[in-house]
Amino acid sequence: MKMTEGGVCAAKGFTAGGVHCGIRKNKLKRDLSLIYSEFPANAAAVYTTNLVKGAPLKITKENLEDGRAQAIICNSGIANTCVAGGEATAREMSVLTAKALGIDEKDVVVASTGVIGQPLDIAPIREGLPSLVKSLGKSSSEAAEGIMTTDTRKKEVAVKFTVGGVECSIGGIAKGSGMIHPNMATMLVFITTDCAISSEALRRALSSDVAETFNMISIDGDTSTNDMVVVLANGAAGNEEIVSEGEDFSEFMKALNTVTVELCRRIAADGEGATKLLECKVDGASSLDCAKTVAKSVVCSSLTKSAMFGSDANWGRVLCAIGYSGAKVDPEKIDVSFRSAAGDILVCEGGAGVGFSEDKAKKILSEEEIEILVSLNDGEYSSTAWGCDLTYDYVKINGDYRT
Amino acid sequence: MKMTEGGVCAAKGFTAGGVHCGIRKNKLKRDLSLIYSEFPANAAAVYTTNLVKGAPLKITKENLEDGRAQAIICNSGIANTCVAGGEATAREMSVLTAKALGIDEKDVVVASTGVIGQPLDIAPIREGLPSLVKSLGKSSSEAAEGIMTTDTRKKEVAVKFTVGGVECSIGGIAKGSGMIHPNMATMLVFITTDCAISSEALRRALSSDVAETFNMISIDGDTSTNDMVVVLANGAAGNEEIVSEGEDFSEFMKALNTVTVELCRRIAADGEGATKLLECKVDGASSLDCAKTVAKSVVCSSLTKSAMFGSDANWGRVLCAIGYSGAKVDPEKIDVSFRSAAGDILVCEGGAGVGFSEDKAKKILSEEEIEILVSLNDGEYSSTAWGCDLTYDYVKINGDYRT
Repeated sequence: MKMTEGGVCAAKGFTAGGVHCGIRKNKLKRDLSLIYSEFPANAAAVYTTNLVKGAPLKITKENLEDGRAQAIICNSGIANTCVAGGEATAREMSVLTAKALGIDEKDVVVASTGVIGQPLDIAPIREGLPSLVKSLGKSSSEAAEGIMTTDTRKKEVAVKFTVGGVECSIGGIAKGSGMIHPNMATMLVFITTDCAISSEALRRALSSDVAETFNMISIDGDTSTNDMVVVLANGAAGNEEIVSEGEDFSEFMKALNTVTVELCRRIAADGEGATKLLECKVDGASSLDCAKTVAKSVVCSSLTKSAMFGSDANWGRVLCAIGYSGAKVDPEKIDVSFRSAAGDILVCEGGAGVGFSEDKAKKILSEEEIEILVSLNDGEYSSTAWGCDLTYDYVKINGDYRT
Repeated sequence: MKMTEGGVCAAKGFTAGGVHCGIRKNKLKRDLSLIYSEFPANAAAVYTTNLVKGAPLKITKENLEDGRAQAIICNSGIANTCVAGGEATAREMSVLTAKALGIDEKDVVVASTGVIGQPLDIAPIREGLPSLVKSLGKSSSEAAEGIMTTDTRKKEVAVKFTVGGVECSIGGIAKGSGMIHPNMATMLVFITTDCAISSEALRRALSSDVAETFNMISIDGDTSTNDMVVVLANGAAGNEEIVSEGEDFSEFMKALNTVTVELCRRIAADGEGATKLLECKVDGASSLDCAKTVAKSVVCSSLTKSAMFGSDANWGRVLCAIGYSGAKVDPEKIDVSFRSAAGDILVCEGGAGVGFSEDKAKKILSEEEIEILVSLNDGEYSSTAWGCDLTYDYVKINGDYRT
């Protein structure tokens, strides 16, 4: 397996594009993206568990009932959520997209992201579709930009891997930033692969992967209304279709996981206002559930996040977050270290502080990627969660998001 | 019932004091507080559910096993948590206090608040105790100051009420600020009353009250390791002892609740970095649990808290927080309004936005006390939760808390 360029266009048979159609006022920011497969593809998706759900999710769920899709349309700026008539607008988006591409309207995935509670005007989308279709090409960059909200960086990842002797590609783009605390689903992530894999196997692969990746990120504890992860697999690589677990399925899982973990890291690192990526790695847990609960509690703690912003080795915040996580742990067995490109340092052993150099700790915590290492010394299970620091800019961005 | 002055000294037979003993470097900040009852009192307490527990809590629990206490000693600056030998230090605090007051060491409540993971030096406490005992008097103000950490205001409340024709008083002091997300217990709150009430009835009153008051506050989602609420009832008012539910118990509950609700409001309003008190009032819920879950989810949402800081009527954040709360609600029945001293405004009806004046909304949200009114229109239950806005200063305070 090796990393490659091209994001959602790395896989054979996929093209993508993005334009400014006018949903946003800023003409320099693309606000409408399209991903297209030359052939109908097998598809799987996971969605937010928030009871307040964006209208596009309902239409996408309907359209994906048969496990097939050929295109993904997504706008940013307006979430099409908590508005009267939202479903009709989302359905119209799928119908217009299908018409513009000459495909079946049931083969369109519809997504929206942005402000909740304001109506989405279909007119700019209708008028923008011809140029959006014309923009389709082998660059995934414009589509990655079109789905961004307060993201500061585009997020594109792709890898090449081999299944049954045949080279396949899988790649994705993501939009993260705020309202990120996925639960059984996540922010917007679109993944494409030319690997031949049945809808059922694809669904299984995605559900299993998401539990360890996107569900382990938190930017701010707020689970969005519009989260969705979609994978399209068009089989253009020509491998024998993967239909059940086995060596090929494992290879596919590994490739999928490489893409999703890297997207997780990029989403967390580019959290609203973030200056640092936090990775909490927990080992020695008595169960997988315990490891995950502890890791997630640490990256969710506002106090830990603020301390990391200030490069302050305040490990008491970490212990506190472990203690209230709800996981069954023995506080007196817990070790905590911090690690980064500048080195590593043990700060707590057996639940009590150890002497350490504050200068060295400050240097380690001043890096852009911080690992918080927690050993529970109580079993064999481990897990990783991703988050970011809490900064002035998070407050600034969200103190006046709508204007 | 009427509000009165005196905090924990409003009740007959109680005195309090506070001194600077040297745990903190700043000599102008008192760091050691004492509350004393002339007579042994019935006592009840609730504690944090965090598995990482401060050493003082363990000693206090032991000492309160017989439902009796006569003094409360509390230092700020160092939490005496996650340190080797913490329990021995806490026990020594109780023994030294008992000796200085000439009471039984089992009748001392011990509490500490401040930095986690640093050892608490007993020497300044030992040396400070004589002057602390000398400082005892009918002013609760010095004790209220001595327990403050990053609190910006002292929190003292008291009321007079009548039980069986006898006038009683009940009053409390509190320390809140950060790491506030109580669960079955809360930050440090010390309450005294001269009402005669059995330990058992007092325990019942406190547990039942805390579920609706301190457990409904959140400053930052972090449940502290050292939370505790203690009530001492010394019976000095001379009423017939309350031993079971009935009219007298109800009167006592009302008085207790008046004190605790007001302390909750003051703790939330003085949350770390806070500029605004948020009160989320939920009605029309299908169960009490549903009402509480929804109210707490709204005041915990970082996005809602940031929007309130910016006086931004971004009600989509409120809907989102309701949707992911885990409570069973019908999103299409939800109404949301904002209310303050400047008026009120409906912003969402039946789960969808309604037209409203942004200028009027801004004016309402620019006040210091904001009510977020949520009608679920799905039942008879209601609940209130308290929180505060998320501000630059929260991040600033916690980016470098230890230095």
